Amino acid sequence: MSDPFVVVGADAAGLSAASKFRREAPDREVVVFEKGRWISYAYCGMPYFIAGYVDRMSDLLSLSPSEVDERGIDLRRGREVVAVDPDAKRVTVETSDGDRFERAYGDLLVATGARATTGPFDVRGVDGAFTLHNMDAAAAIDAYVSEPDAYDAARADVSAVDRERVDRNAAMPAPETAAVVGGGYVGVEVAEALTERGLDVHVFHRSGHLLSPFGETVGNRVEAALEAEGVTVHTDAPVDALVGDGRIEAIEVGRGGGEASERVPVDMAVVGVGIRPNTDLLAGTGVDLGPGEAVRVDDHGRTSLPDVYAAGDCATARHAVTGEPDWVPLGLTANRAGRAIGATVAGDPTPVGDIAGTAAVKAFDAEAARVGILDRDEAEAAGFDPVSETVTAGSRSGYYPGAAETDVTLVADRDTGRLLGGSIVGTDRAAVRIDTLATAIEADMTVPKIERLDLAYAPPFSPVWDPILVAAKVLNGTLDD
Amino acid sequence: MSDPFVVVGADAAGLSAASKFRREAPDREVVVFEKGRWISYAYCGMPYFIAGYVDRMSDLLSLSPSEVDERGIDLRRGREVVAVDPDAKRVTVETSDGDRFERAYGDLLVATGARATTGPFDVRGVDGAFTLHNMDAAAAIDAYVSEPDAYDAARADVSAVDRERVDRNAAMPAPETAAVVGGGYVGVEVAEALTERGLDVHVFHRSGHLLSPFGETVGNRVEAALEAEGVTVHTDAPVDALVGDGRIEAIEVGRGGGEASERVPVDMAVVGVGIRPNTDLLAGTGVDLGPGEAVRVDDHGRTSLPDVYAAGDCATARHAVTGEPDWVPLGLTANRAGRAIGATVAGDPTPVGDIAGTAAVKAFDAEAARVGILDRDEAEAAGFDPVSETVTAGSRSGYYPGAAETDVTLVADRDTGRLLGGSIVGTDRAAVRIDTLATAIEADMTVPKIERLDLAYAPPFSPVWDPILVAAKVLNGTLDD
Repeated sequence: MSDPFVVVGADAAGLSAASKFRREAPDREVVVFEKGRWISYAYCGMPYFIAGYVDRMSDLLSLSPSEVDERGIDLRRGREVVAVDPDAKRVTVETSDGDRFERAYGDLLVATGARATTGPFDVRGVDGAFTLHNMDAAAAIDAYVSEPDAYDAARADVSAVDRERVDRNAAMPAPETAAVVGGGYVGVEVAEALTERGLDVHVFHRSGHLLSPFGETVGNRVEAALEAEGVTVHTDAPVDALVGDGRIEAIEVGRGGGEASERVPVDMAVVGVGIRPNTDLLAGTGVDLGPGEAVRVDDHGRTSLPDVYAAGDCATARHAVTGEPDWVPLGLTANRAGRAIGATVAGDPTPVGDIAGTAAVKAFDAEAARVGILDRDEAEAAGFDPVSETVTAGSRSGYYPGAAETDVTLVADRDTGRLLGGSIVGTDRAAVRIDTLATAIEADMTVPKIERLDLAYAPPFSPVWDPILVAAKVLNGTLDD
Repeated sequence: MSDPFVVVGADAAGLSAASKFRREAPDREVVVFEKGRWISYAYCGMPYFIAGYVDRMSDLLSLSPSEVDERGIDLRRGREVVAVDPDAKRVTVETSDGDRFERAYGDLLVATGARATTGPFDVRGVDGAFTLHNMDAAAAIDAYVSEPDAYDAARADVSAVDRERVDRNAAMPAPETAAVVGGGYVGVEVAEALTERGLDVHVFHRSGHLLSPFGETVGNRVEAALEAEGVTVHTDAPVDALVGDGRIEAIEVGRGGGEASERVPVDMAVVGVGIRPNTDLLAGTGVDLGPGEAVRVDDHGRTSLPDVYAAGDCATARHAVTGEPDWVPLGLTANRAGRAIGATVAGDPTPVGDIAGTAAVKAFDAEAARVGILDRDEAEAAGFDPVSETVTAGSRSGYYPGAAETDVTLVADRDTGRLLGGSIVGTDRAAVRIDTLATAIEADMTVPKIERLDLAYAPPFSPVWDPILVAAKVLNGTLDD
């Protein structure tokens, strides 16, 4: 017990764990190694910083290093854990100067997050081409889209920022046309952000509709919302290459079916085609990996290695519908698992909780959300016989001003009637309604039970039959057939 | 089976039942007796009509009599069922001309709704004094608050309207100061409506905070929201009398503690102190009554009389928390129970569903909602040991523009950790969040389980830890003590 609780990674999961542990076990030591300079930043807020909705980068920081110190956490930035020896219970740490040392641990939490994948594209060394997966990239994008004489350097007001990179991007002429490669939620948010900054934005998405995990109804409505604000959305449009010598000049889009690829001239590209868990430090340990090559954990966040936990974007979590490990890297999951593991390591065993794959996204005035399993193949692979219905219903009583069409999709298992998943898209209080379905999923509710939920009715907020109840009613009819 | 399904009352419960029955049993007869001329109107929309948010009274009608006819329902307006003979299975009907006849029924649904109580006040015969419990009253109030030369008669564009009453009220000089007697949700909505119409509004509420069933946190914040818009709220202020000879001149407010009552001059009063179920037609039948003197029903809406059902504001429903009959007259409950009974009578037994007492209300920019059991005494009477916490949390990520303080109260049972009730009040998507708690209550969830719900996180809609999760976390801490 004399060896410390070592945490690798100082973001949501790592610092939640360290903070909770510190409160619960004030007499034990906790050390957090962070390879970079940034800690505890709001990844999900970066598009809104770029959009200009957020004035200062420092607003996106939850905790400063000194606040972490004040909590009694021994935070070491610029220290990368490069190897773990689970037998000796030691980690190997490399400093930013290239020195190496070892450190013993009592318990270890791997909270190393994920990194952006770029597919076939190497954005490094191409001016105007970016991925958006850390604050330095957000600061660089913000600088790049500003006219050199109009850039407000005070926006990147965090000492950790890569000032040289910001300055270099600020000095370049502002772009007029941007390609967003990938129409997932980061792609959609970045498309909105760059449009707000005055760019002519093209979104390229490999498959048939945006936001693949949200289903077709949501994808199509979000596409319409983007296009209504001037974004050009290209679906079934895999990007083959970024073109440019020094600075980005165009992208090449595959059209399939033997057609020649199309070249779209742009002077900016943001690539958001996916992320991958950071697990290199565990190479050679024999640790079990799970879906997405994330570290497989049990319901208390324990990996297959003794006294080694994992949490956040590098770890799996149990899915509430299938009961199986899944990899859905999202903010709440990281915070919640970190906090639970902090308690568990401190001696109060706490489950990390299931995930339901709940996610929400904004595209200008459209709000969309999803939960559970929406995809037919995925449901069948999990042993279900999925039945789905989509309805369009009013968000308020029809006579009340501002009532807006809300599309609800529900998916249920034919045999049991159990809710497997759902999506909601609309413009009036649509996204938060997903929490009703998330709660129903975690309670293993059937659709007949959902149809009888006593949801709130008040003309300004919901019609007598809430859109979710309407959808449940229709899906019940189909289940009865 | 040859005698018809007779429905008494042509509003939400009655017409939902008749419509569902007609679809499920197209060959059987259904007769709906309605004592008045109005059918199927949106009671909850009346304050918004008075406010001027809704232009035409006809917008508040869900179904016209001819649409009911088209559904194959035999609707008889101006026919009041005054007695039921459960042994002979016959009802006695009185026409608006005073004639009486009898009609046999195979099954009977009592969906007679409720009527406004006025406490010690008789508003009839006092010009400028109203209750708001039907469309004629709404039309009269709308006419009364208009300047005679500015009244738009086209607003009351429904033939059923009591035109003489409207004309008489339209001809009176418009009031400047109004008393709203009773600070329940109708009182709050009417206060907003009359303020929107330019009146100086005083709300008088008997107890210490508005919206008693919503709890003190909500009541105080709604009071602040009303006062911010110029409404004067008087709490602990029971009204003793309406004063006026012909037209209302003042109200007298008791101050308690032996103090003399205060006279507040007003030229309008709207009394909303409560409603009472309409059950006179069942007098002498020996039917079991339940809470609130409403007709006691089982989980399929059956009364204690054979083949007699009751639904809507005149009937009880089973409360999801206590499992006992309760009386919470609200719109969804009526629609849902009616629809279920229509199916049951048609041969497809369908439960009416539990209620959770879910309700929402708007007061200018404030939104409030409640569910379950919030009151300590009520919880104790039901055998629980209630523990409660209230938190204030942001509605969005702190850095995202528009994040607003949201107050969440959760009440749980100390022994089991089960959620008993909750309330939410705020200005940003606050009310619809109650549906998460309503779903949790119907699933008998514990607070630890709620703390681990995978609710949606997206900066524009919710912080990482949704206000409900924050409240669950805090209440869990208290439960652990």
